[in-house]
Parts: sequence; C-alpha cells; structure tokens
Amino acid sequence: MDTLAIEVSYALDTFYFLMCTAIVMLMAAGFAMLESGLVRSKNTVEILNKNVLLYSIACLVYFVVGYNIMYPADPVNSWIPGLDFFLGEDNSTESVLAGGEDAPYYSAMADFIFQAVFAAATMSIVSGAVAERMRLWPFLVFAVFMVGFIYPVEGYWKWGGGFLDQLGFQDFAGSVVVHMAGAAAALAAVIIIGPRKGKYGKNGEVHAIPGANLPLATLGMFILWFGWFGFNGGSELKIANIEEANAVAKIFVNTNMAAAAGMVAASLLARFLFGKTDLTMTISGALAGLVSITAEPLLPSPGLALIIGAVGGVVLVFSVVLMDRMRLDDPVGAISVHGTAGIWGIFAVLLSNPDATFAGQFIGTVVTFAWMFIASFIVLSIINKIVRLRVDEEEEMEGMDISECGMSAYPEFTSDK
Amino acid sequence: MDTLAIEVSYALDTFYFLMCTAIVMLMAAGFAMLESGLVRSKNTVEILNKNVLLYSIACLVYFVVGYNIMYPADPVNSWIPGLDFFLGEDNSTESVLAGGEDAPYYSAMADFIFQAVFAAATMSIVSGAVAERMRLWPFLVFAVFMVGFIYPVEGYWKWGGGFLDQLGFQDFAGSVVVHMAGAAAALAAVIIIGPRKGKYGKNGEVHAIPGANLPLATLGMFILWFGWFGFNGGSELKIANIEEANAVAKIFVNTNMAAAAGMVAASLLARFLFGKTDLTMTISGALAGLVSITAEPLLPSPGLALIIGAVGGVVLVFSVVLMDRMRLDDPVGAISVHGTAGIWGIFAVLLSNPDATFAGQFIGTVVTFAWMFIASFIVLSIINKIVRLRVDEEEEMEGMDISECGMSAYPEFTSDK
Amino acid sequence: MDTLAIEVSYALDTFYFLMCTAIVMLMAAGFAMLESGLVRSKNTVEILNKNVLLYSIACLVYFVVGYNIMYPADPVNSWIPGLDFFLGEDNSTESVLAGGEDAPYYSAMADFIFQAVFAAATMSIVSGAVAERMRLWPFLVFAVFMVGFIYPVEGYWKWGGGFLDQLGFQDFAGSVVVHMAGAAAALAAVIIIGPRKGKYGKNGEVHAIPGANLPLATLGMFILWFGWFGFNGGSELKIANIEEANAVAKIFVNTNMAAAAGMVAASLLARFLFGKTDLTMTISGALAGLVSITAEPLLPSPGLALIIGAVGGVVLVFSVVLMDRMRLDDPVGAISVHGTAGIWGIFAVLLSNPDATFAGQFIGTVVTFAWMFIASFIVLSIINKIVRLRVDEEEEMEGMDISECGMSAYPEFTSDK
Repeated sequence: MDTLAIEVSYALDTFYFLMCTAIVMLMAAGFAMLESGLVRSKNTVEILNKNVLLYSIACLVYFVVGYNIMYPADPVNSWIPGLDFFLGEDNSTESVLAGGEDAPYYSAMADFIFQAVFAAATMSIVSGAVAERMRLWPFLVFAVFMVGFIYPVEGYWKWGGGFLDQLGFQDFAGSVVVHMAGAAAALAAVIIIGPRKGKYGKNGEVHAIPGANLPLATLGMFILWFGWFGFNGGSELKIANIEEANAVAKIFVNTNMAAAAGMVAASLLARFLFGKTDLTMTISGALAGLVSITAEPLLPSPGLALIIGAVGGVVLVFSVVLMDRMRLDDPVGAISVHGTAGIWGIFAVLLSNPDATFAGQFIGTVVTFAWMFIASFIVLSIINKIVRLRVDEEEEMEGMDISECGMSAYPEFTSDK
Repeated sequence: MDTLAIEVSYALDTFYFLMCTAIVMLMAAGFAMLESGLVRSKNTVEILNKNVLLYSIACLVYFVVGYNIMYPADPVNSWIPGLDFFLGEDNSTESVLAGGEDAPYYSAMADFIFQAVFAAATMSIVSGAVAERMRLWPFLVFAVFMVGFIYPVEGYWKWGGGFLDQLGFQDFAGSVVVHMAGAAAALAAVIIIGPRKGKYGKNGEVHAIPGANLPLATLGMFILWFGWFGFNGGSELKIANIEEANAVAKIFVNTNMAAAAGMVAASLLARFLFGKTDLTMTISGALAGLVSITAEPLLPSPGLALIIGAVGGVVLVFSVVLMDRMRLDDPVGAISVHGTAGIWGIFAVLLSNPDATFAGQFIGTVVTFAWMFIASFIVLSIINKIVRLRVDEEEEMEGMDISECGMSAYPEFTSDK
Repeated sequence: MDTLAIEVSYALDTFYFLMCTAIVMLMAAGFAMLESGLVRSKNTVEILNKNVLLYSIACLVYFVVGYNIMYPADPVNSWIPGLDFFLGEDNSTESVLAGGEDAPYYSAMADFIFQAVFAAATMSIVSGAVAERMRLWPFLVFAVFMVGFIYPVEGYWKWGGGFLDQLGFQDFAGSVVVHMAGAAAALAAVIIIGPRKGKYGKNGEVHAIPGANLPLATLGMFILWFGWFGFNGGSELKIANIEEANAVAKIFVNTNMAAAAGMVAASLLARFLFGKTDLTMTISGALAGLVSITAEPLLPSPGLALIIGAVGGVVLVFSVVLMDRMRLDDPVGAISVHGTAGIWGIFAVLLSNPDATFAGQFIGTVVTFAWMFIASFIVLSIINKIVRLRVDEEEEMEGMDISECGMSAYPEFTSDK
C-alpha cells in the first residue's frame, strides 16, 4: 500500500466533506431568502435577523455543547475531560497510515463542521413557521436550547449510535432526524403563539397573506436545492474509492430527480385544484421532493427517486391545505415541507432499503416527533412565561421591523413609512 | 500500478464532475434572477414559474428520453432494452481497475447529471427571449419537445459522435451546441409570437421597457459567471492527472478573462454609443464574453481569450441594436448573448485549434441553426394552433402574473395592485 | 513513489485551488449585493456598475501587470521577457514528477487566478465606502492604478517575498495585506470626496441614511461568508496530504466560528447600546469576525477563534460610531469592517503564532497602511484634478443612476420616477 495514495485519499475525503459543508452552510442564505420573500415587508428585517443570528448561535452552541451530546464517541471531542477549547486534536498521521477498518479516513474537524451546519439547518426550519409574530430574542433563546440540547439528544439516538439506531431505524440524511424534527419544534411553537392577526376569519375563512418579494423566495429555493447536493451527498461520508464515488453520484442524481418531480407534481396539482400556477406551491413542491428523498437518497433507482419526489410534492399540497383547515398558521409552509414530506420520506425508505422495517421507521418517527414536540413545547412555554413569545397587537399591526429592529427592509418601496 | 491510486483517481474525477454539475445547476438560478430582474413587475411571477419549472421538466425529460437519444453509446444507458427505470448500473470496480484506454475513469451517473444540467441551460435561454407574452404552459410543453428531442438530436450529431463530430466540427463546451442552439429556438419563438405591445412604434421607434429589479439581474449575471466555471471547466471531462489539471486551470483562467473582457468592451462601447454606462449592456457583455470562449476555452492563451471575449462584447452590443432594428423583441437580449456571440465563438476556434476548419465550423453552425430553428418553428406552430402561445391583449396589459399565476411578485411595492 | 499517486495529488491540489477560486470569485457578487442593498435606490445601478466593472477590470489589470509585480518569481510569469500573452507555460509533467521540495504541486495557472480574485476583493472594499457620491469612471480609473500597481507592490512586500515577509510580518490570508489595505485606500478616497449631502448636520448630528433593500444586503453577507471558506481555506495553498487536509478543515472551522461570534457579539452590543437589533450591525459583525480571523485562521483553537471573532464584532461597532463622530462617511461601514477589524486581526496573530512579534505586526501594519493611504491619496488627487471624483450637487440630489447610467434600478417601486 502506497503511503502517498493513502494521504491523497484522506485529503480527498476531507475536501469533499468541506465542500459539502460550505454548500450546506449556504442553505442558511437559502432559508433567509425564502422566508424574507414570503413574509410581508414590515416583518422582513426581523426575519432576516432571525435567520442570520440563528445560524451563528447554532454554530456556537453546537460547538460548545451540542456536538458533544450528539457524538460522544467522536475522537475530536474533548468536552469536560481534556478540555481543549471544546475540540481536541485532529487525527494523527500515524493513526491514518495505520490503516485497517478503524483508521480515520477524513478530518474530524471537517466532520464537526459538517454536523454543525446540519444543526443550523434544523433550527432554520422553525423560523419560517413562526414568522411575523414571534419575538426575535425569545426565538433566539429557544435556538440555544434547541441546538444545544433538544436536537442533539434525538440526533444521538439515531446518528450518535443511540437506541433508535440499534432498533434499525433508517434515516440516511435526516428526513426525520433533521427535517421532521425541525417541523415538530415549529409545530409546538405555532400552537403556542397562535396564527397571525387576520389570517383566519370568524367563519373559517382563510385569508391569503401574500409575500412581499417572490423572486427572493425563488432564489432561496434554488440555493436550498443547490445546498441539498451537499446535504445528501455529504451524508455518504466518503467518496474516495470507486464504490463510494458511484454512490455519491447516484445520490446527486436521485436528489435532483426527486426535487424536479416534486416541483412538477405540486405545480400541476395546485393548478388543477386552484386554477392557477401558484409559484409558492411550485417552489414548496421542489423542497418537499428534496425532503422526501433525504431519508434514502442512495438505494432507490433514479426512476423510483422520481416517484418518491412526486409523491412528496402531492403530499405537500394537501398538507398545506390541511394545515389551514386546522388553523395552524405557517407563513412559509415549513411544517408541511419538512414535516409532512419528511414523514412520507421516512416510510418511502421501505421501498428500496431491505434493512428498513415498518416498525423501525414508525417507532423512529413517533419517538422523534414526540421528543421534539414535547421538549420544544415545554421550553417554549417556560420562555413564554418569563418573556412572552409573541409581539403585542400594536407591534404586530405596525410590523416587527420598526419595533424590534428600528428599521425598514425597503424604506423607499413601501408607502406607509 | 497501485489499486488505491486508481480508485482515488476515479473518485477525484467523479467528484470534480459532481461539483461542476452542482455549479452548473445553480445557473438555473442565475437565469431566473437575470430574467426576473429584466422584466416588468407584472410579469415576474410568471417568468419565475417558467424558469423553475423548465429546469425541473428538463431534468425529467432528459432523463426519460433526451439522454438516450444524445448518448446512445453510454454504458449507463439502458433505455428500452434492459429498462431499469431508465438508467442502468454504474461502472463496476472491475471495469475501472482493468485499466487501459477504454476503462471508465468517472461515474457514469455523474456524466448523466452533468449532461442533464446542460440540457436545462439550453432551455433557459429560450425563456428570456419570450418573456412577458408567451403563455406559461404552452412554453413548458415546448420545453418537453425541446429537451426530449430537438436538442438531443443536434447534441448527438456533435457530442454523441454523430455526423457533425465526424465532419470535424469543433465545439468544446457548446457555443453552438448549447448556446446558439437555444438562441435559434428562441428566435423561432420570437418570430411566431411577435413583439410586446408598445415595444415598437408605428414609425420605427424603439421604446425601452425597463426591467423592474436590476440588482437581481446583476446577481443573475454573477451566478451565471460562477456557473460557467463548471460549464467550461467540467467539459474537460477529466482532471485527475497533471496535464488535465493544468488544462482545467487554464480553462478557468480563459473563461474568467473572456468574461471580464466582454464586460469591459461592451460597457465602454455602450457608453461611447449611447452616452451612458448602460448596466444591461455591462452585464450582457460579460455573458457574451463567456459564450464566445465556450467553443474553445482550452487552447487560446489567456491573452487571446481576452481578445475573443472582448470581441464577443462588441458583437453583443451591435447585435442588440440590430435585433431592435429588425423589430425582433427579446426582452433580455438572450438571442444576442447566446446566438450572435455563440457564432462568433465558434469561428474564433479557428484562431487556436489547428483541427478546426472554416468549412467544419460553418457547416456545424448552419446545420445546427437550421435544425434548431426549423424543428422549433414547427413544434411551436403546432402548439400555437392547438392552445395559442401568446396571452391575449387584456392579459398582457394587466400582466401575466395575475392571470396565469394568481399573485403578484411585489404586492406591496407596486401601486396598481 | 507511485507516479499515479503524484499525479492525483497534483490534480487534487489544483482542483482545491480552483474551487476556492470560484468561491472567492463569488465574493464579487457578495460585495455587489451588500453594497446595493445598503445604498439608496437612486444610486443602485451606479454601485452595481462599479462592482461588476471593478471585478472585470481588476482581473484584466492584474493579469497584464499586477501579478507580475506581486509575484516576480512565479514560474508562470513571463512578462516582458518571453512575452507569451502575459502568462507562460504551466508546470511540465517532468518537473512535477521530479519530486523534491521544489517540485510544483499545483497548477501555476490556478495560482494566478486565485491571486487575481484576491486583487479584485481588495478593490471591492473601496467601492462601498465611496458609494452614492464618487463618479463611476474616475473610480474605475483608480481601480486600474490600485490593482495594477498600488496593491501588488504591498502584496509583493509580504506575499511575494519582499521586505515585510523577511521582517517576520505574519498575515496568513490578508487581514492587513488585503482587507486593511483596501480600507486604507477607501479612507483616502473618503477624505478626498467628503461625506454625502445630508449625512452630517451643522451641530454634529448624524443622520441615518437607510439602505433601500436589506434582504439583498443580507444575501451579500452570506455570499461573502461562503466565499471566505475559499479565501482562508485556499490560502493554505495545499490540501493533498493528511496534515494539510487537517489544516484546511481547521481553517474552515475557525473561519466559521469567528464569523458566528463576531455577528452575535456585534448584534448584542448594538442592542445594548442602541436598544434595537440593528440588522446592519448584525451583518457587519459577521464580516468583522471574518476579517479578524483572516490573519491567522489556522493556529488558534476553535475556542480562541471564537474569541478573536467576538472581539472583532465589538471593535466593529465602536469603529462605526467613531467614524461618524469623525464625520467620515462610509455608507456600508467598509472601513470599519475591513480596516479596524483587520488591524485587530493582525495583532490577534500574537495570541497563537509563536513566530509573530509585536514589532513585526506593528511595522507591517503601519507600512502597509502608509503606503496604501498615501499612494491612493496621490493617485486619487491627480484624478480629481483632471476629471473630478465627485458628482455635482444636482446629480447627487437626483441620484447617480439617471445621470451616470441612464436608468433606474427599481423604476416601478419608487414614486419619484
């Protein structure tokens, strides 16, 4: 075995991980654009602040506690014992060159940052659902608990080698572990804070509240799609041999196929149901397709990935309608995109992965949902008691940008300022 | 020969391909931002819908039929015979390790998706030219035929090993095969549907119809430029040895140089001709430079690449003026950027590639143009007969967003809603 | 030593360089979005023109002269002697396979383009500070001198092996060499052209001039953050062995950590000082954190990187306040973000790099500042004599978009058109 080749292999796997990390990091921009495009202009600065600050807080908190809880066995981890500013030494050249099955084949630092951007993505899901009414800093306080404890605990259960993993629960890149988990937390928040003023009429009418800037929302969708290549592609964790390279390539194909099919299916269905080509459904359909394939982007044939994504798009449209019937106000459809499509995705694993069982997928989903929902509900309720989660009525009328952030997002475009 | 090194080499070539794919995929976002920034606000949701849906439809259709027509010899292809949901098995480890000239050196799946995003880019060129007046779903039906048949046939002639390739026609990454091809289809559409109401006066006046959001258009240009590194860089098809790595690096340099020179040349010329620094010309000049170098980004010295790009920028400005003289209304200048500059690019190959002949380049261009224009004209005419391509006058006045999509792109920024 | 493995290693290092280049190139889009979001709508087309044209001009000028001045020893350099359109042949296969310490391990072309995008970034810093009042073409003429001579001279002093390098001045990726250098040039320009009309009152009042499009500014920040992975990560110059791969991974972690901490620190401080969560401070805090860690992103532990970034965020807020006290009008805070935080960053190197000395850092900073400021001041003064740097009062009132560029950025969103 040539030493140089081992070194290059390690470097390639690390570089692949880092590129995937950078691409997933950009998903924070995707969420920010999607959400700021879909809210009203008077709440835009606030949602931008939420999105950028949650990303930063997530990275810091996951570094200080979250990663340690989620991956206690990771060698780079030196929390409490051997505290070396929270992260220890990376793999030694000796340990890599020693070879064998246990030899590390990529930088542990790269693994940490890849996991950190996943944690941030989970939190980004929440911000959209609570848009236009949840106060900024209480939200960010929740982010600390969510990324520092609630998410890592369930992440550990599956990806850290915990009981859900041992139970055979299969979730490749996180249809449930990341996406439905974020949606469950979002649902808890939506129930506690209630719908936006004027969203639902007294007689059950649903009033559309149009977003202020749809090109931004579209850009956000494209950035998320782009980011998903890193999200799913990076979750293979290795690329530096023939089999793994083929695997990552197939994940790219399947991820793209599911997104495309989800978009077309949702757009056609929305046109059939509502008579118009609803851009928000078109966009959300692609994201639902992406969430659907995330639980298993490797094993399906591309044709099956297409079908999984298309079903995800269909599920999305009905979920959005249903949410409004239940008067659960989710301004960007985050719970439907990440939650409902995530649940579909986790059961779609049964179509291609022989190791998956219905019981395993069911228990994994229920346990994750219950934990995320209940833990979030408790933490949010406590925060609500202490500092109030929701803006007062006058602030909501005026918009949160002035009251919370002291500025308008588009001071020259809107007349009332 | 070390097995591990071969594996890493295969993995690097595959990873390079996949990163280029992801970057080219983002060009869909670039086109969407460019076009939505250059149309009026009342047609913005519609053009966004066109851009996102055409990307998805292109990926699906190219998967089901297009790829099979364009690359019949590709091993991953198993259409009709051995149907395995349209794509077969990827390269086996054995075939790779066997070595020799015919051994595959990157994932066939990666090749498929790289080609798929190229097909989508071809279609994106059309959407800009027909903006603000061509109906959404007839456009998308055309996309099915374009990506499923019209484009793959001419793609096969050159890149699939067809008669243009055997004739010695040289087009490295598609100045003609992709860009002029898209422009020829766009021209057919523009002729059939006619100019926007109010664009041309009775006495030959040309009325500028300003775009609604120029920062978005600028962002789109930057994303396209970024994407072009993948577009041209990926078209080398290999990076994993010294010579190929140097080649890809030179392609990056030349691509960047041509874009920069195209921008500066177009901007200076526009200022000289019109007295103002016209941002749309500045932006389009960069894109024209990029299109110009696409036919041969490897062989020119960087200095020659600079000249090729600069001429592309000059050609662009005159082409835009000429198009308006001919009353061919192209709201985003797509035909000039991709068509005129593409033709310049294909002949500029003669400056550096000794294998290129004037006859070969001429025949390749004429045949491709004729096929794309005529086939598109026929298909569009048939669709026009059945479902009408153009919106009616009232819808055009009101804008396509309300009539086609039921929503406004910027409901709070524009007064008339 | 296996030849194939050497070839793959060379290819990986080259590919890594090219991907970093592409990502850093996108920073031009980040600056363009940041700046166009923070100026008023009437000066938006102009700042977009500045941003796109300065990138192109920087690439061209750096190619023709700048690179040759900055890296006279680079093998690809063939300026004057052996003129081969400004760039010579890339590394031969023989020279690479020869091995040994002096053997090239990545494409010289890749090195050139990586350096070129750095030069463009330096110039981008200036455009924000002079926004809304410096004329377009005089600015671009200055860009020619800046990128062609002023920046490469000081770049040579450190990175080209000049006297600052020999003196032990430590600046890994350019807190001072790039960022403070750009800020020093910007400061010279700001002093010469003076503040925007209406920014400062007669009695020392500071009037906020809100930006027109804050989502764009936020997007710009995210793109810059993303680009910084390439900026700092690429500056390691090598990834293809275990040690280097670990190093690049650590740079990614530290870069991200410093940005996150800078954002949170600046946002909290701004809220404490001003009572509101000021989005522009939140955004600028992240950028200040990034600038702070740029001088030494490798040696600090991630915990120390966090602290360095946080201090950068704090320094930023005070610097912005101080700049306004001194009536130095910098519409986007570029001098504080890149200059003040850059100086903090260069001294923070002392916290982790044993090779750094206070004297070395101090001399490097003072010399670089003096050179950049004085040389820029002289060149700008000369341009000012000949063609006037500042728009006249009427044009400033009306906005530069109409007078310089003949169009509006948002013709339908703003009422006065």
